[in-house]
Amino acid sequence: MIVVMEKGATSDQIEHMVQRVASLGLKPHVIHGTERTVIAAVGEKRENAKESLAIGPGVAEVVPILAPYKIASREVKPEPSLVTVRDLKVGAGHLGVIAGPCSVENEEQIISTARAVKAAGATALRGGAFKPRTSPYSFQGLKEVGLQLLAQARQETGLAVVTEVIASEDVELVAEYSDVLQVGARNMQNYRLLEAVGNTDRPVLLKRGPSATMEELLLAAEYILNEGNPNVMLCERGVRTFESHTRFTLPLASIAYVHRKTHLPIVIDPSHGTGHAYMVPDMCAAAVAAKADGLIVEVHPDPENALSDGYQSLTFAQFEETMQTCRRVAEAVGLKMA
Amino acid sequence: MIVVMEKGATSDQIEHMVQRVASLGLKPHVIHGTERTVIAAVGEKRENAKESLAIGPGVAEVVPILAPYKIASREVKPEPSLVTVRDLKVGAGHLGVIAGPCSVENEEQIISTARAVKAAGATALRGGAFKPRTSPYSFQGLKEVGLQLLAQARQETGLAVVTEVIASEDVELVAEYSDVLQVGARNMQNYRLLEAVGNTDRPVLLKRGPSATMEELLLAAEYILNEGNPNVMLCERGVRTFESHTRFTLPLASIAYVHRKTHLPIVIDPSHGTGHAYMVPDMCAAAVAAKADGLIVEVHPDPENALSDGYQSLTFAQFEETMQTCRRVAEAVGLKMA
Amino acid sequence: MIVVMEKGATSDQIEHMVQRVASLGLKPHVIHGTERTVIAAVGEKRENAKESLAIGPGVAEVVPILAPYKIASREVKPEPSLVTVRDLKVGAGHLGVIAGPCSVENEEQIISTARAVKAAGATALRGGAFKPRTSPYSFQGLKEVGLQLLAQARQETGLAVVTEVIASEDVELVAEYSDVLQVGARNMQNYRLLEAVGNTDRPVLLKRGPSATMEELLLAAEYILNEGNPNVMLCERGVRTFESHTRFTLPLASIAYVHRKTHLPIVIDPSHGTGHAYMVPDMCAAAVAAKADGLIVEVHPDPENALSDGYQSLTFAQFEETMQTCRRVAEAVGLKMA
Amino acid sequence: MIVVMEKGATSDQIEHMVQRVASLGLKPHVIHGTERTVIAAVGEKRENAKESLAIGPGVAEVVPILAPYKIASREVKPEPSLVTVRDLKVGAGHLGVIAGPCSVENEEQIISTARAVKAAGATALRGGAFKPRTSPYSFQGLKEVGLQLLAQARQETGLAVVTEVIASEDVELVAEYSDVLQVGARNMQNYRLLEAVGNTDRPVLLKRGPSATMEELLLAAEYILNEGNPNVMLCERGVRTFESHTRFTLPLASIAYVHRKTHLPIVIDPSHGTGHAYMVPDMCAAAVAAKADGLIVEVHPDPENALSDGYQSLTFAQFEETMQTCRRVAEAVGLKMA
Repeated sequence: MIVVMEKGATSDQIEHMVQRVASLGLKPHVIHGTERTVIAAVGEKRENAKESLAIGPGVAEVVPILAPYKIASREVKPEPSLVTVRDLKVGAGHLGVIAGPCSVENEEQIISTARAVKAAGATALRGGAFKPRTSPYSFQGLKEVGLQLLAQARQETGLAVVTEVIASEDVELVAEYSDVLQVGARNMQNYRLLEAVGNTDRPVLLKRGPSATMEELLLAAEYILNEGNPNVMLCERGVRTFESHTRFTLPLASIAYVHRKTHLPIVIDPSHGTGHAYMVPDMCAAAVAAKADGLIVEVHPDPENALSDGYQSLTFAQFEETMQTCRRVAEAVGLKMA
Repeated sequence: MIVVMEKGATSDQIEHMVQRVASLGLKPHVIHGTERTVIAAVGEKRENAKESLAIGPGVAEVVPILAPYKIASREVKPEPSLVTVRDLKVGAGHLGVIAGPCSVENEEQIISTARAVKAAGATALRGGAFKPRTSPYSFQGLKEVGLQLLAQARQETGLAVVTEVIASEDVELVAEYSDVLQVGARNMQNYRLLEAVGNTDRPVLLKRGPSATMEELLLAAEYILNEGNPNVMLCERGVRTFESHTRFTLPLASIAYVHRKTHLPIVIDPSHGTGHAYMVPDMCAAAVAAKADGLIVEVHPDPENALSDGYQSLTFAQFEETMQTCRRVAEAVGLKMA
Repeated sequence: MIVVMEKGATSDQIEHMVQRVASLGLKPHVIHGTERTVIAAVGEKRENAKESLAIGPGVAEVVPILAPYKIASREVKPEPSLVTVRDLKVGAGHLGVIAGPCSVENEEQIISTARAVKAAGATALRGGAFKPRTSPYSFQGLKEVGLQLLAQARQETGLAVVTEVIASEDVELVAEYSDVLQVGARNMQNYRLLEAVGNTDRPVLLKRGPSATMEELLLAAEYILNEGNPNVMLCERGVRTFESHTRFTLPLASIAYVHRKTHLPIVIDPSHGTGHAYMVPDMCAAAVAAKADGLIVEVHPDPENALSDGYQSLTFAQFEETMQTCRRVAEAVGLKMA
Repeated sequence: MIVVMEKGATSDQIEHMVQRVASLGLKPHVIHGTERTVIAAVGEKRENAKESLAIGPGVAEVVPILAPYKIASREVKPEPSLVTVRDLKVGAGHLGVIAGPCSVENEEQIISTARAVKAAGATALRGGAFKPRTSPYSFQGLKEVGLQLLAQARQETGLAVVTEVIASEDVELVAEYSDVLQVGARNMQNYRLLEAVGNTDRPVLLKRGPSATMEELLLAAEYILNEGNPNVMLCERGVRTFESHTRFTLPLASIAYVHRKTHLPIVIDPSHGTGHAYMVPDMCAAAVAAKADGLIVEVHPDPENALSDGYQSLTFAQFEETMQTCRRVAEAVGLKMA
């Protein structure tokens, strides 16, 4: 940590801060610049040290040097992690495709979609049974019945099932039916839930909150990893910006950043990331070209009559064509697709 | 709702959408413009109608006319709501002041702070017992012991106690000790938690998520109101923007907006909203001048040694001086302070 | 335009607005909803009409239906525009590649770079002679000497020259030496400059301002088109968001949006769009996969010693490898590359 | 400057960077931490040093210690600057009020407005003669005729005239008629224009661009100061964020930040900062409570028929009432108003 003193900091203030640094168990190193004095605080990072030092007398700012996450860091584990569930492989050069409807609506809908996405090349089925909805008056999902339908679709197709869990008290139930536990964007910092999924043996798909920094996302992953569950897949699904012609702004540069900072794989969600079905195929291809480890795509047999998110869902035919393009792009950049 | 067709929309497409509107129970009204056709869909808003219509063939966009929240709407209840708990009055021309440390740390800290903020004019004490922290390695709060200390502080000072609840399973416990249940920014869309606090008889302080729109905040309030709890105080604590010289960007225009759209009162949090103690006094005064219904301010006996958020906490002396200024400003704009 | 009245709007207010709409030369259509009244204003859009109606008594909001730009609109010219300069082809299925250093520094630097990017597949050379710099103390470019060096590089390689013009009084000079006039992000709304480049016969590369909406970008293009210059290439170079791990956030969904709304081609700038050389190759590939009409990439013989933007510049070897990948991706998605 | 090496940086890489630092004329100081090595580079800041070092081998990041602006810095001139023009006083405890229409439309409009705002307490008149407009089809201002009308209004009322200049070639003309030259948000980084106004003896009102950081704003001011014009007033008029219920998001914490970092005064523009007339009075009061050095407010005799910005303009009566409130608030916080 670097403690930068103000230009006019007195020698008493500098001395005070030197002692504060030492009292936190860090070794102070004073450097007198031409205009300012800085104190380098050497040692293993202490929690709260930055906050605590920042308010000291004569301090201009405190600059942390080490990332606050540890287990997630690529410095700790240099080789990329591969998450495998049934035929789904995400990470380490494998592109996994998860597809399906926003919500599970009924047997015919989920079974027909499972068959269609499998035929097109997906190896996992998404589908919401517990739906977090912005309005209390919107369709909230079929709950356990939805989970049962997902399990039935898995039985008929062999696809791995990915579904969202929205509360720690539901984790056991959802884990019983599904292969991958999804933590949604709204719950990225629901720490009780993160701890709960961290205590299962199910891989977790952790979605980035729309205003979360990448560091906050990695710290959320750290909550899960810290409980002993190593199988975390990060998911970029767009951030909230001033742009209103898309639902969110989908920053594909997150992929390169994640690959540099962590060994965890990253899955891209162009459906939520754009909010418009017509943009989804090109953004799928773009994500693959940028070497995403996975895609999660909304597909529905009849988007116009979907109970949720129809406007961003692909039809079966659109999804199939998208997969064909993705396959060619994956080959062009050297990614393996099932 | 207004369905705007694309310029080249065919008469078949228009006819299809007219029937879609009708099938949703809305009355279609076709207007042929010089360049485009629009279909006004008249009737009580139907959930999902916008989403569903937007994907129709030849549709350029769908513009909603009615706000999606109902109970929270000022159109439904034109007079402003007043929330009263012990001596705390928030709303309808009353400015309530809630102050105290970020976290409850020990008996001396919380009792001395309670006395100091009461002497300066606060009528409620804030203090975290269950702390949601970005890093799993940060101090997570004293939990039930913290709640007990808050209750003790209330007994000694008469201040109402405001403290955060971070999971639905804790609501009962927290409600036992506190007067107001705070739902934090990270949990603004934790719907299970919103429903749980909606089922208590405790007033709720609902913080805006850093990327939530005002409409999403009001829909989150609607979850609580819809369970039967009418005592919701909204809290603006800043939004995430590109600005990095403040922790968040604190938009005080939210006050005027909230007063126009809802009867619920709005409390401003300049501590989180700026992230720098030196900015807090002026932003308190500004919030009062903009006719906020309440302030929530972090105060600590020794910010440099606080276990959390010291950099944005006022000392007792700073808080007292801030309250004196606020009192003069409140008088200048016609707000009542206890 | 749709004028939405407030719930409690009186019949006098509605009548007043009906007459206001008529007085603007629009035909009013009143629709009485179950909760609100809306007035559809039919006719060719009148400038200022929205602003003027929005402040009327009892008006809740005014929703425009037509895009404010005309010549740029795809509704007016459905087939995509192709911009051709020497061997550079941008648009209508052609991917044009523009590459070169941030600033022209000296003869050897610009000539060697021109040769290297040509060999790798670029058909145009970028290089700044007039540099708009955030700090008055930074290197401001070689000015006319820089232009001469660019012209020399063109003579030796045949590459089209793309360079920035920062003031209307320089347009004539810059147009004398260059093939494409670049209007930088800081000048996107410098209307005097837009008019000046609109009065030349040089194609224009118009960069999006970091907080400009797509509609504002298209209106800036409209200034140029309106002066009679039809050869405008839009350039997406990233928007400013809360993300700090990239210099800007690069939204590739802009490509699909632009292709839907306008016939003008769009060029992607992954160098400024990310601000980190290590992210540029993957984002080039992603832009191609998303069917960009062009790429503009910073390349420098020795990035560590560049006078500007070294941190986001590729070396010759990195650029060559990037081009090879882009070529494969272009083939995968059906784009033509020179 | 602090050069932070990556965890696995080799001793060769560290040695290379030590020499790079020295070659830039800075003195290197190596500190070996428990996990990383950092190199403190001591000395007067060298331009481009940060960029150039950041791309070095094994470098994780480079952290600047000194602000990049100099003349604007409060470290250089600790006492606050006061800008005085006729009866307008802005800064150093004085609150100056500038009011008037968005555009000068005709004699009656500008003269009546000048009289009304003077009577209410303003000491300067705003009014646009050269209007930068997003659309080429919008009213572009009366140009020189508008300037003449402003001069006439000054003659009749004694108010100082503040008007925008949009191009360097117009500076002489505009300076002839006006007392303060306004540089608009769109031109904040039009460096040719900044230099031109820096070469006049007129005070400059420099508006913040909607996505400019405070550091970029201060660097833009530095361009003007560096030409020898010391009378720069900064203007906060809101930043672009995801919020759509206001035109921009107006961050009043900018006031405290500016007062800490620079001696230049700061003027708040609640009209553009909110985009809604109904929010303007409260935000004026809030700006005063936060100790702004000035206000700039749009006032129009008949907002509904204004040629521009009517929706955010106050009527004469609203402005008068707003001024009365501001006067009381100014007294409450110790600001002097004319």
